[in-house]
Formats: sequence, C-alpha cells, structure tokens
Amino acid sequence: MKTAVSHQTIESMATPFPHLHFPPPPPTPTPPSQDDLKRVAAHRAVELVESGMVLGLGTGSTAIHALDRIADLLRRGTLTNIVGVPTSKKTEAQALALGIPLVDLNSHPSIDLSIDGADEVDPHLNLVKGRGGSLLREKMIEGASKRFVVIVDDSKLVPRLGGSGLAVPVEIIPFGWEYTLGKLKKLFDGVTGFDAKLRMSKVGDVEIDVTDNLNYIVDLYFENGIELDLGSISDDILRITGVVEHGMFLGMATEVIIAGKDGIKVMKKER
Amino acid sequence: MKTAVSHQTIESMATPFPHLHFPPPPPTPTPPSQDDLKRVAAHRAVELVESGMVLGLGTGSTAIHALDRIADLLRRGTLTNIVGVPTSKKTEAQALALGIPLVDLNSHPSIDLSIDGADEVDPHLNLVKGRGGSLLREKMIEGASKRFVVIVDDSKLVPRLGGSGLAVPVEIIPFGWEYTLGKLKKLFDGVTGFDAKLRMSKVGDVEIDVTDNLNYIVDLYFENGIELDLGSISDDILRITGVVEHGMFLGMATEVIIAGKDGIKVMKKER
Repeated sequence: MKTAVSHQTIESMATPFPHLHFPPPPPTPTPPSQDDLKRVAAHRAVELVESGMVLGLGTGSTAIHALDRIADLLRRGTLTNIVGVPTSKKTEAQALALGIPLVDLNSHPSIDLSIDGADEVDPHLNLVKGRGGSLLREKMIEGASKRFVVIVDDSKLVPRLGGSGLAVPVEIIPFGWEYTLGKLKKLFDGVTGFDAKLRMSKVGDVEIDVTDNLNYIVDLYFENGIELDLGSISDDILRITGVVEHGMFLGMATEVIIAGKDGIKVMKKER
Repeated sequence: MKTAVSHQTIESMATPFPHLHFPPPPPTPTPPSQDDLKRVAAHRAVELVESGMVLGLGTGSTAIHALDRIADLLRRGTLTNIVGVPTSKKTEAQALALGIPLVDLNSHPSIDLSIDGADEVDPHLNLVKGRGGSLLREKMIEGASKRFVVIVDDSKLVPRLGGSGLAVPVEIIPFGWEYTLGKLKKLFDGVTGFDAKLRMSKVGDVEIDVTDNLNYIVDLYFENGIELDLGSISDDILRITGVVEHGMFLGMATEVIIAGKDGIKVMKKER
C-alpha cells in the first residue's frame, strides 16, 4: 500500500519553523545541466582549433558537442581547410552527417589537436576512457596528437583512477576470452572490492558487446579506485596474452578543460 | 657460353692422387632430412603424453608429426581419453581429420602438456614463434600449460633471438596499421640492419596476410639478432597501441627437444 503525501504536507515539512518570517528567496537561474556543462567545455576546446589543422575527433556525449561546434564554424567560414580523423565508426558517421571532411591515420599520421571526453580524470591528468568501447582507436589517434585536450564536466574528477566505481575497460581478443578474463581477475587477486566482467550489450539476452575492431571488452571495477602504481598495472595488463589495450590513458592528455557550475577550470600538463 | 664438364672429368677431379690406393668407402646411410629430424623430435616429445591428458596441439611442419604420432597411438589404444586444444584453425582441421578429440581453452583452462615447434631457440630456452601466423593462440594455450615441450631440428638453434635473420612476427590490429608499423620502426631506430615489414601472402598482388583473429602481422628483421634486453623489448612492443602480441616466447618453454644428425639433445628450464 502506498502512502499518499499531499503537496501541502510537503510544503509544511519544508518549512519547519512557521513562526519565523523568511524573506522570499531571490530568483535563481536554472542551474546548468550536465549536458550544458559538457557543451561549455567543448566550445572552450574548439577555440583552440585553427584553420588548416588535422584534428582528432573524439567519441561520446561530450565530444559530440565539439563536433557540432566545429561543423558550425566551418559552415560560417570562420574555420577553413580542416580535416578530421574520427576515433570511432560512430564519430565517423556523425562527422560525415555534419559535413566535416575526414581522413585517416594512415594518410595523416601526425595530428595537430585531438579533442575528446573522458570517463575519469585524476589530479595528474591521467584518464579512464573507453566506456563507449572505442578506447583503442582513441588511444592510437590521441597518442599521435601533438596536443590532446580533454573536455569534461566536473563530475568526472576523481582522486584516483577507478575511483568513480564505474568500469575501467580492457579490450581483448575474442579467442579464449574466458581465459583472458581469468588472468585479469588473477592480476587483481586480493584487491578489496575488485571485480571484472565481460561487457554485454544486452545482459538479459547474453549478447556480447563487440568493438569497432571486432574484439570484446572486459570491465574492471575498483571499489576504492586503483591504489597500485598505474604504470606497473598498465604493463601487467598489457603482458596478458589476449589483451589488446586498456582504457587507462597515462600521461597522454596535455590539458583538461573542466566545466562546473562555477565556471571553467583548465588543468595543464607539467613540462 | 657454357663449359661442358664430362662425368669422367669430375671423377678424376675428385681423386687428385690417382697413384695412391684408397680402399672403397664403407656404405654410408642416407643422412636424415630436416623433416626426418623434425619427426624424431616430435616422436620423442609424444613419449611424454599420458592417457587422460589435456594436450595443447601446436601448429606447423614439426608439430604435425606430433599430431600424427598421437593419432597413431590413439588408434592403437596405447593412449586413451586424450583431448586436444588446437593452437590454430589449421591444426584444428588437421586434428579433426586425424580423429583427435578437441576441446577449447574456455572449457579446459588448464592444459597438462603442450607440444609445438619453434622458429628459433636461444640458449636460455627463449623462442621465436609465429612465422606461421598463429602466435597469439599458441602463446595463450602454451602459457596455460603446466609443461610446454618445444620440438625442433638443430637448424633452429640461435645464439640470440632474431639471429637466424628471419622474421620475428608481431600481431597488430588492422586499424591504423601503417601508424603501428611506424611505431615499431621507431622503437628499433638506430639498430643496424633492422627492418620491419607488413606480411603479405602474395607480395606481387599486395594481398595482406590475415591471422586467425583477423589481424595483420608485422615481421621484424634483425641482421645480428636482438642485442637488447628481451624483457624490456617485449614490454616496449606491447606498449605500442595497436600491437596485440609478439612472437617472442620468453621463459615459457619447460624443455626443448633438439634432433640433429648425431641424435637427440634435451635442454631443460632451470628451476
């Protein structure tokens, strides 16, 4: 049985001291949504784009705002002679629909600037990326970039990678995936709150998620974030036969643009 | 113009001191061919197989002799209750044709004994494998084996890996392969006589070789073998985004059976 709570009741609960006089609150603007913040960060990053550049085009709900903005500036003629290298098939389709000219890494192995979102950012500009499943292409293209600008809303900041409690993805070869999953579990044996799971696109139907490279994804979960040395952990993961790449982007970002309710903050890599 | 040399002339050239009397040479047995030596090593390895074992089945011109022998012993009833885990699609087809029951690594993650050939063996039992293109499956299955016995003829012994002058293969993701090839070349920049090439199945028609995992192979060539620390080189290669696995099998073989004209030699891993 549900308890009906009237609007009146809630209002009186919200005013526990009815004998006191409160002045009416000043009109507050609608707080920006998370998507508004993503857009703000993306637009700030696109200010760095110059005509003639080869751009790495990121994937995901934040990067799409950068794509939109670049397309807009191309249409207006503010930017000219831009070519983009998409980090996923999805981004490729979006960029084509927006009229952004595309090239690939083989014809353009040196990229001037990449702009992409991230799932997590730690205080040293290390990232977790690839919850969207395109970590390998992102890592390759962003690793080939002279400048790699990350755009996030402030909910993505973590004290340690893995600290959001969400997945740290690892791309693996389908052959022997249960064996590879077992090796990944063994690597973090004894870490409190650790778990590793094969990513399914439909958990109910047991349908396995497949990357653009036709591989699988294992998601690693750390209850308290990764408290081990990230460089060592990276090597340990890459040494497992069957692992293609992982979603920790260490020392790759040159700057991170963070949009929060109080404005924009920029973190830059120490040189 | 060609010079005609009669059979007679050759015979007299072969006997430079006709005034001396030589006894007729004793009848010599036909020296064993390289394939004979491969068979000898393979048969010795199969002596280690016991009924009830889960076996890793290698790939290539030496491993096929082990398959033949195992199938023969199964037919005779000398061995029973054997299951094999094939290291390639080719081996899978061969084993099925020979009547060897097959399972996979997911159902049998612990393998009792793997038997496989190698392209090179150094004095520390480190191997180069995968010129046949199935290095990833071999590495996974042989890495999951309690005992990994390598069978070679003595032409495969080298003082250093890469020392045969033949390829050290690296399996890479097709996406951005030119970029990955460039990174591999850069890694060995300055190494005299180094080269790296994408493997083609038909060089004339520019048709790219594809592995069982639908990836490409880059072949590394070292004029003087790898004079760098193998463990560091392994990590450096695996750190390149786009690299899946390489063909150096370091510290994996538990013993190597070497067949030469003078008999069989066995090298065992120090414990």
